[in-house]
This record gives sequence, structure tokens and C-alpha cells, in this order.
Amino acid sequence: MRKTLKELTAIVGGEIVGDPLVLIKGVAPLEEAKEGDITFFANSKLSQFLHKTRASAVIVDSKTPGNGKPLIRIDNPYAAFSKIMELWVQNKTYCLGIHPTAVLGENVKLGENVSIGAYAVIDDRVEIGDGTIIRPHTCIGENSKIGKNCHIFPQVTIAEKVELADNVVIHSGTVIGSDGFGFIGENGTYRKIPQIGKVIIGNNVQIGANVAIDRATFGKTWIKDGTKIDNLVQIAHNVEIGKNCIIVGQVGICGSVKIGDGVILAGQVGIVDHLSIGDGAKVAAKSVVTKSVAAGKFVSGYPARDHNEERRIKASVARLPSLYKKVKELSKKLEKYERKS
Amino acid sequence: MRKTLKELTAIVGGEIVGDPLVLIKGVAPLEEAKEGDITFFANSKLSQFLHKTRASAVIVDSKTPGNGKPLIRIDNPYAAFSKIMELWVQNKTYCLGIHPTAVLGENVKLGENVSIGAYAVIDDRVEIGDGTIIRPHTCIGENSKIGKNCHIFPQVTIAEKVELADNVVIHSGTVIGSDGFGFIGENGTYRKIPQIGKVIIGNNVQIGANVAIDRATFGKTWIKDGTKIDNLVQIAHNVEIGKNCIIVGQVGICGSVKIGDGVILAGQVGIVDHLSIGDGAKVAAKSVVTKSVAAGKFVSGYPARDHNEERRIKASVARLPSLYKKVKELSKKLEKYERKS
Amino acid sequence: MRKTLKELTAIVGGEIVGDPLVLIKGVAPLEEAKEGDITFFANSKLSQFLHKTRASAVIVDSKTPGNGKPLIRIDNPYAAFSKIMELWVQNKTYCLGIHPTAVLGENVKLGENVSIGAYAVIDDRVEIGDGTIIRPHTCIGENSKIGKNCHIFPQVTIAEKVELADNVVIHSGTVIGSDGFGFIGENGTYRKIPQIGKVIIGNNVQIGANVAIDRATFGKTWIKDGTKIDNLVQIAHNVEIGKNCIIVGQVGICGSVKIGDGVILAGQVGIVDHLSIGDGAKVAAKSVVTKSVAAGKFVSGYPARDHNEERRIKASVARLPSLYKKVKELSKKLEKYERKS
Repeated sequence: MRKTLKELTAIVGGEIVGDPLVLIKGVAPLEEAKEGDITFFANSKLSQFLHKTRASAVIVDSKTPGNGKPLIRIDNPYAAFSKIMELWVQNKTYCLGIHPTAVLGENVKLGENVSIGAYAVIDDRVEIGDGTIIRPHTCIGENSKIGKNCHIFPQVTIAEKVELADNVVIHSGTVIGSDGFGFIGENGTYRKIPQIGKVIIGNNVQIGANVAIDRATFGKTWIKDGTKIDNLVQIAHNVEIGKNCIIVGQVGICGSVKIGDGVILAGQVGIVDHLSIGDGAKVAAKSVVTKSVAAGKFVSGYPARDHNEERRIKASVARLPSLYKKVKELSKKLEKYERKS
Repeated sequence: MRKTLKELTAIVGGEIVGDPLVLIKGVAPLEEAKEGDITFFANSKLSQFLHKTRASAVIVDSKTPGNGKPLIRIDNPYAAFSKIMELWVQNKTYCLGIHPTAVLGENVKLGENVSIGAYAVIDDRVEIGDGTIIRPHTCIGENSKIGKNCHIFPQVTIAEKVELADNVVIHSGTVIGSDGFGFIGENGTYRKIPQIGKVIIGNNVQIGANVAIDRATFGKTWIKDGTKIDNLVQIAHNVEIGKNCIIVGQVGICGSVKIGDGVILAGQVGIVDHLSIGDGAKVAAKSVVTKSVAAGKFVSGYPARDHNEERRIKASVARLPSLYKKVKELSKKLEKYERKS
Repeated sequence: MRKTLKELTAIVGGEIVGDPLVLIKGVAPLEEAKEGDITFFANSKLSQFLHKTRASAVIVDSKTPGNGKPLIRIDNPYAAFSKIMELWVQNKTYCLGIHPTAVLGENVKLGENVSIGAYAVIDDRVEIGDGTIIRPHTCIGENSKIGKNCHIFPQVTIAEKVELADNVVIHSGTVIGSDGFGFIGENGTYRKIPQIGKVIIGNNVQIGANVAIDRATFGKTWIKDGTKIDNLVQIAHNVEIGKNCIIVGQVGICGSVKIGDGVILAGQVGIVDHLSIGDGAKVAAKSVVTKSVAAGKFVSGYPARDHNEERRIKASVARLPSLYKKVKELSKKLEKYERKS
């Protein structure tokens, strides 16, 4: 694909400096760009590369001096570059149609332009919306519904009674709808509580690789529109995650936790069962949340508490050896007084 | 399936209040139940729903006031409800027999009523017991033995020389029998130590999604009867886990750890190699166990220590900024005395 | 396979004590060895077994007293035994050739003696080197290159544009080349940044089960020669890991982290994005690295700091309740003085 700088600014906005008709054939970062590529500059540490780049055009902000190449000046160069990248990426096509080795159950309903890869297994009564791509080796359990324009990567397992809305992306190795971890003690052993609920995944949700999302005991485990989930995340039964949340790698969320909209959970966080996390709250990496968190709060630590308080406490901890010294000194002085008096 | 209240109490026990012949067609939680369902009441926060529920019968304890509907009165309403749920869930059948696309090696021995799903790959000399269900895309390596009435979900990998007893459940994405992580340093590089041991899984063990259980270097990695393992758990080579343990999501257990019976490891716990954890011990979430734990102990923290001691220490840490203030005050007072005298 | 003790010392070195022609038919640990096996003794806790073992020969160091059996005396008995084990393990063969159910795309290039298992899916323009074993159900995306003598276990997903050098081992359930977790905020929602980079894996790298390694946004995610990665590890986009590193189970490494050669990350460690970890550095289990670590340093804690300093701090924390007591005493004494004066 080829686009002029003018055509690109028509898509992303911004102001052209230099030749608007320069022809762009690809995208690449500053250090790797070659002639014909467009690149961007947003990190002052890379300014040495700005003047060396072989790119044919650079996206910069208003404060960056020119490098003699045609420029697009715009507020957020990386965001503009990211949108331009999409043009080249969307060019990628997967062979449309149903691979002859795919196994489809009874009463499967497929929309238009659905692609189903080799060895995919689609159980009875599954529905798949228009334009959705199911890559090879993915299994979808009975009565599940997949929306439009979803992309399910190879080797995903979607169990029965799972509902995906539109534009959902799920990466390889992820399991949606495994049984919740529910047992009742019975004479020193554990008896499984049947897990008969659903999983519901909203529009534009993206889920990383090797994630596990359990079905609800009853009712639903629910990930709402726009939420992004990184790799190796554990989401237990009956968890509810709001809209446009960011759940970073290796987070673990226990059963029945309710998370609001716009929440950010950093990597390796753990959240104890049945808590609620308010809209817009943030949890720092590897924290353990043991009490519900109010909307807008930023918490960290184990137990997670107000982030500033936790910082003060952490700083106090780091100075502990000197505190011990100080107390020892005080103690000695006091002893001296005692002996004197 | 339809059962009268009388038939249900014959199974779970308890005492009927109201019409014993009311016909039950399904199970659902209080808020979601519709006519024909049986439900249960065990959480006083939901008492508002007790009087609104559309369920045809409710399981309650002896202290709950009636809501005008037929009741089963019993000590543990949730346990009774859970058993009743099983009746409806077990109704689920998987198509029996061997799917024509399943690949079976030489000298595979299958019991009666075995179900093997699409694209399953069963290697040479595998044995599978009566009534076991192998779902699609599961791979079982040579010389492995699967007991009776097991349920192996889609996309599980069971490597060679793995032995599962009866009634074992393994969820999707789980890998049993990957090589242990054993290397010997050799001139600045690492040389792999061959991992030629087994994995043995006892009766009634349940394993979640995307778990990894390594085979032993030699001898066996061993999970004993009745233990339940949640999602994304890591179990290294030569680990031994006792009977009826609960291993919550994202726990990591290093090589050669020996865990007794009835142990509970909460989420994200780590256990250092070669330790032993005594019968009935409990480890709180995200603790790191660096020394062996005696039977019956409840430990937490990093390093894990007696839970009450850890709580005292955590409380002390939280009050550190005020301790610094206090010490500063004392120091000033003392200085004043020094100046005076 | 049968080897005399003499033949074995020709391979591993060491000195024979007793009959050099004793015939060895297998390998086993001290407690489990039977007649015909060779074993080793390296752990003084097992000395009771040294005199009971039924093995036909034992590998020992220079200080161990004989047990009446033929011996190999050598500096590192376990390393020697490990090499001898390899002889019996390498005997294992996988059926060579391409299984008839494997799906190969267009212009796939296969070396000599390549083995491709049942239901493997190899996309267009993939290259696979001589002697490589692709086990059943593994998917390899288009334009990826796999080197010589690699062993890719069942149910691995290697996405497009991934390059593996020679002798790479990847265990089941692992995903290489999932999209990096990159999003840009846009009016309260998140827009995906296309992830168009590669993953490059060096020679002799070994990767455990259910690992996730993301592709670079652009450029490459890069694991260099000889590095060993345990199960359930998360490696984000654009991470670079040096040669001969050890990455233990459940470690999480955020985007663009640069790790030097010979680094050891213990289990469940987290590393914040864009940091660098110098050659030979070590990070203790479950630490969170929040600042770059210099070469050769051993760090631990959250935030990770010099390990000795962290130990001092942890020890101080453990004694906190007694510090509070001490300060209270001082305070009382001082009050007494105040009252007096």
C-alpha cells in the first residue's frame, strides 16, 4: 500500500511541513525506518536518531525542531503513528471461509464472511457473527455466541454458554468458561459445587494469551465493553469487571469481586474475594487488595492502602535500621541520666 | 428432569414445610429463580430477595422465617442446594464413542463407555478407564494411564508416563508432565538434566485451567486423592501434595516440596524448594514460604511466619510514621534536658 | 541399551573402582535403583541408601567411602550421572516424517529428518530446519523460521514472524508471538497500538509450559542463546533477555526491559517496564524491581534493593513489636523525669 503524506493527514489530522506528496510505503520506528517509511518522534532520549533516520517523513509535536524531512506536526505523535500503522496492518487477510477440517456441530449459525481455521471445533448451536475470524485449533462449546468482527487466535478454548459481543480479540492459549473453583467441605474431603453460570464478554474487549476466566457458579462472570486484559491473568467465578479497565499480566481476581469502570490493576496484583473496586481506582503492581477500594483511589501494598500512605510507610521501613540506632542512642543517654540522678 | 420436593429431600435430607408434591424443574439462585425452580437462602444480605423470589421452593436453615413458599429446612442450605444442582448438571451428556477424527496409537486400551472428542491424539499404549470423557483436542502421551470416570476438558496436554486415578477432572489448557526445570552449570552455560520421572494424580483430584505440573527428574511428582487445584498454578518436579488440599490460583510450588494432607495454600503463594508443609497447615495469600511449616500452623508474610505474629508485625509497620514522630519527640525532649543540665 | 562402566567413564570421565566390565542397563536414583542400574550419591542425607542400594554401580565423589559395589569416582557425581542419563533418554525416537493429518501451507520449507505430528498446522512460508520435531497440535504462523534440532512439544502456538535458532525446546501450552499489550487512551476508551514486530529466540533456549512471550510493537522481543525459562512466565513486548539467563516460574517482565547475560530471576519476580538488569545480576523470589539493577548485584524486596540491605530491613521489621515496647519504656521514663523536674 502507498499513501501520500497528504492522504495520511486526512486520516490522522495534523499539519504538513514540506512536500505533501511524498509517497509513504511503510511504517517503522525511528532507528529502523528506511526510505519510504514514515516514523514518529516522541521520546527525547532518541533525539540522536531524529537527525539520522532514513525515514521519508516524521510525525513530531509542535516543539520538535525539523530534521529537513517532511513532517506531520500533531499533538500526540505516537497516537497518530499508531493509527497510520493500522492501515498497513489491516491489509493482512486470513483466508476466508470454513477450512475443510473444521468440525461444526448441529445448528451452528454463521454470519457472513466468517473465517474458521483448520481443526477448529465448533459445538452444537454456536452462533458466530459477521466478519469474525476463528483461527486454527480453537474450540467453542455448545450454545456459545460470538459477535461480529471478533478475532479468536489459535488454540483458544471457549467453553459452553459463553457470550462474546462484537470486536472481541482473544489470544492463544486462553480459556474462557472453565469451572469456577467452588467446593464444599464434607467429612474432611471437598465436594464440587456445580458451576452452571455463564461468561459474558463485552464489545471491544481484548484478552491476552494463557488467561483463565471461570464461568459463574450461577449468573455470570462479566467483562464489560472496552476492557483490556494482559497475559496469564486469572479471573474467578462471578467476577464483574467494568468498562475500559486495564488488567496487566498475572493479576489474580478472586470470586465475586466487582470492579468498576476505568479501573487499572497493575501486574501481579491479587484481589481477595467479594470485594468491590470503585470506578477509576488504580492498584499498584503486586499489591494485595484485602478491603474494598473507593472510586478514584490509588492504592498499593499488602494490605493495599492509600498509595501515598503506603509510600510513607515503605520509606519508613527502609530507614528502620537507622531508627533502631537512634532508639539505642536515646536509651543510652537516658541510662546515663538515670545513673547520674 | 422433574422431581417433587419429597424426592429431593429423600436425596439431601431435611424437613419439608408445605406441599411435598410441588414439582421442581430446575435450580437457580434466589434473584434469578423462576417458577418451577428450587433455590436456597443462606446469605442474610439477600433477605430482600427471599420474599420476592419466584422460585417454587426454597431451601433454608432452621432460623429463617418462611416466605409462604414450600421449604426444605436443613442445616446447610447451600450444601443441600449444591447436591440438588448436581442432579440437573449430570443430565448433561457428551456424545459417547470415539470421534472419527481422533488419532489413536498402537495398543491403546479403552474401557467401556469411553468418549474421545474430535482431534484428540492418544499415543501408543495409553490406557483409559470406563466412563472417562476425553474432550476435543486433548493429547495424551505414550504409556500414560487414565482412570475411570475422568473428565479431561478440551486442549489439555497429558505427556507420557502420567497416571491419573479415577474421577479426575482437568480443565482446558493444563499441561501435566512437562519437563522439570533442572539444569547443571557447565562453563557458563546450562546443560539440561534429563527429566525421566512420572506424574501421578490421585482419585477425585480436580485441576483448573492453564496449570503446569512438571514430571519428576526421576521418581514421581505426586498429587494425592481429593486435592483441588485452581487455575494457573505451577507445580515443579518431584513435588508431593497430600490428600484433600486446596491450592488456589497462581500458587507456585518449587521442586521437591512435600505438602501434607488437608493443607490450604491461598492465591499467589510461593513455596521455596525442598521444604515440607505439615498436615492441615494454612498459608495466607501471596506469602513466600522459606522454611518448613509444622502441621496445623497458619502462616503468612514474606518470609512466612506465624499468622498472628505477622499480623502484629504488619500492624507495627502501618504505624511506623507515628513511631518516627514519637522517637523524634523523645529525642527533642532529651536534647532539652541535655541543654538544661 | 547396555554399556560397561568402562564405556561410561570414556564418556563422562572419572576413575573406576572395581570391575570395569560390569554391564549397565539403566539409570535410577539411589533409593529406586535395581540390579543393572547405575546411580549416584551426592547428598549426605541419603547415606543410609548408599549401603542399601541395589544398583550395580554408583557414581561418587573422592570423599565418599565405597559400598562394595563398582564405583565411578568423579568431582561432580550428579553432573556425570546427568550426562549418562542422556544416553538412555536420547534413545527415545518420535516417528519421523509428516503425519498425514498435518496441514502445511504454501511454500513451506522443511529440512531433512523433520518430524511433524498429528494435526499440526504450519502456515505459509514457514521454514523448519533439519532434525526438528514438531509434536501434535502445534501451530506455526506464517513466515516463521524454526532452526535445526528443535523440539516443540504438543499444543504450542508460535505466531507469525517468530524466529527460533537451533536446539530450541518449547513445552506445551506456550504461546510465542501474541500481541504486545499496547493501547493508547482515546476519549476514555483504549485504542490498540498495532503490534507488528517479531520474536527472536536464540540457540539452546528452553521454554517451559504455558509461558507467554509477546511480539514487539516494532523491532523484536529477543531471548538470546542458552537462556532457560520455566513455566507460566510472562514476557512482554520488546523485552530483551541476554545469554544463559535463568528465569524461574511465574516471573513477569514488563515491556522493553533489557536483561543482560547470566542473570537469574527467581520465581514470581516482577520487573517494571523499560528497566535494565546488568550482566550476572540476581533477583530473589517475588521481588519487584522498580529501578535498573547494576551488573553483578543481588537484589531482593519490593522495591528491590541490595539483598543484604533488604535482609537487614526485613530483620528490623520482624523486631518491630519489641521496638515499640522499647520506645514506650523510654517515653515512660522520660515522663517520670519530666514529672520530677
